[in-house]
Amino acid sequence: MFLHRHKVQVYETDLMGIVHHSNYLRFYEEARVSWAHHKGLLDYQKPESAYHFAVYETYVKHIKPAIFGDDLEIEVQAERKGVRLNFQYRMRARGEVLSVGKTVHVSLNKDLQLIRMPKNYIESLEKEKWTEIWL
Amino acid sequence: MFLHRHKVQVYETDLMGIVHHSNYLRFYEEARVSWAHHKGLLDYQKPESAYHFAVYETYVKHIKPAIFGDDLEIEVQAERKGVRLNFQYRMRARGEVLSVGKTVHVSLNKDLQLIRMPKNYIESLEKEKWTEIWL
Amino acid sequence: MFLHRHKVQVYETDLMGIVHHSNYLRFYEEARVSWAHHKGLLDYQKPESAYHFAVYETYVKHIKPAIFGDDLEIEVQAERKGVRLNFQYRMRARGEVLSVGKTVHVSLNKDLQLIRMPKNYIESLEKEKWTEIWL
Amino acid sequence: MFLHRHKVQVYETDLMGIVHHSNYLRFYEEARVSWAHHKGLLDYQKPESAYHFAVYETYVKHIKPAIFGDDLEIEVQAERKGVRLNFQYRMRARGEVLSVGKTVHVSLNKDLQLIRMPKNYIESLEKEKWTEIWL
Repeated sequence: MFLHRHKVQVYETDLMGIVHHSNYLRFYEEARVSWAHHKGLLDYQKPESAYHFAVYETYVKHIKPAIFGDDLEIEVQAERKGVRLNFQYRMRARGEVLSVGKTVHVSLNKDLQLIRMPKNYIESLEKEKWTEIWL
Repeated sequence: MFLHRHKVQVYETDLMGIVHHSNYLRFYEEARVSWAHHKGLLDYQKPESAYHFAVYETYVKHIKPAIFGDDLEIEVQAERKGVRLNFQYRMRARGEVLSVGKTVHVSLNKDLQLIRMPKNYIESLEKEKWTEIWL
Repeated sequence: MFLHRHKVQVYETDLMGIVHHSNYLRFYEEARVSWAHHKGLLDYQKPESAYHFAVYETYVKHIKPAIFGDDLEIEVQAERKGVRLNFQYRMRARGEVLSVGKTVHVSLNKDLQLIRMPKNYIESLEKEKWTEIWL
Repeated sequence: MFLHRHKVQVYETDLMGIVHHSNYLRFYEEARVSWAHHKGLLDYQKPESAYHFAVYETYVKHIKPAIFGDDLEIEVQAERKGVRLNFQYRMRARGEVLSVGKTVHVSLNKDLQLIRMPKNYIESLEKEKWTEIWL
């Protein structure tokens, strides 16, 4: 299980005194970039790359609010479904689950055409565990 | 059909040269706040309110990227399902649909307990049209 | 006097119930991009341009807080000082000045070397009025 | 010398492929919040506090761009000047100074009137070292 940590900052809160819901997608992105580095995968967020992963779908379910100062722990799971790279996330703080979410990415070449994802991604994703219980 | 407009700014783009996906949730929020003002509904984003609407779920599907300078047009539809306030969104620029999305909100009191949503919301939402075709 | 308008959004506020101070630089950027379009100047924020303007210095003085829903009016003035393009800003809402600020930009070529700024900028800036009274 | 670290994320970059200049104020804020925790000072960013520190002035000088993946190191220094709390910052990555900056804060009570800053702040700030060489 891969775990990414993030400390909630003032600029991530809004007038309701809690983290603005758009920032959950930023925390999830941090978590999957961190996951990719951990797996030794080429960083896929470079404009000059021969391919990249475009965000196709995002889903977030909010269970409890995150607040300023929270030490967030974000679990990440990844799986391959053809050209799709799926991630799911479970975010915790103060011993509680705050949110679960999922993002779907597709591998594109420089002309924004769907392509088979790089071999090292495919091989790495074969070893991943995916539990369909979060969402 | 309620329509909200937003001009894409430099600070909303990322290194891929397109709008960062987290900002779609910000554009959708702009659109529903704008919708609420248009309907003459009390603004529900005030910490001192007797009730507020908390974001429960968000979903975004990305079809084409939005870019710097785009004049986004965001259509908004709202419906009530019990304690839930649902919005769906369709975002266009340059004659094309860039994204569709949905957010689910629940009405809470100051103690974060589920409550019946305010009467003026219920009445206003009865007059709304909802087409299940976007997502 | 060029004037840019911006309506304050929920996602621009923080837990203190006011606009987060980092967003003032975003509003100023909006204002100067808007100014450039109004003057018919080539948009200088494109990675593929032969030159661009890099942000060299930013300064913001906060006088009164901006809040959610504010209809901000941002006055912009521009001047050229050699390779430097200076902007100053005065931001108002509810009949009051909320902030004044200044940003300094330098024209660079693709290799990030200082270059003379484009001729149409120089000509356009000669016609601008600059009042040293804001800061 | 207090040092705060921040890893640059995709969502902090813009279409020029570098960190958007507004985010430097966010990194500086992270650094001073982190400094306050380190000093054991009461967290001053709570709406319910008897006092808080409002941002009065911000200044950033950009020397080299920060990019995605950078491991930023931000040095922080603090000093008291009457009701003012001044911070200066020096941000490094890849062995180079990327920016220097300064922010000025004033202590206010709940009615937004200037007040003497809390005693533990005054005492803690007396022990701080301030070098006027960064800006």
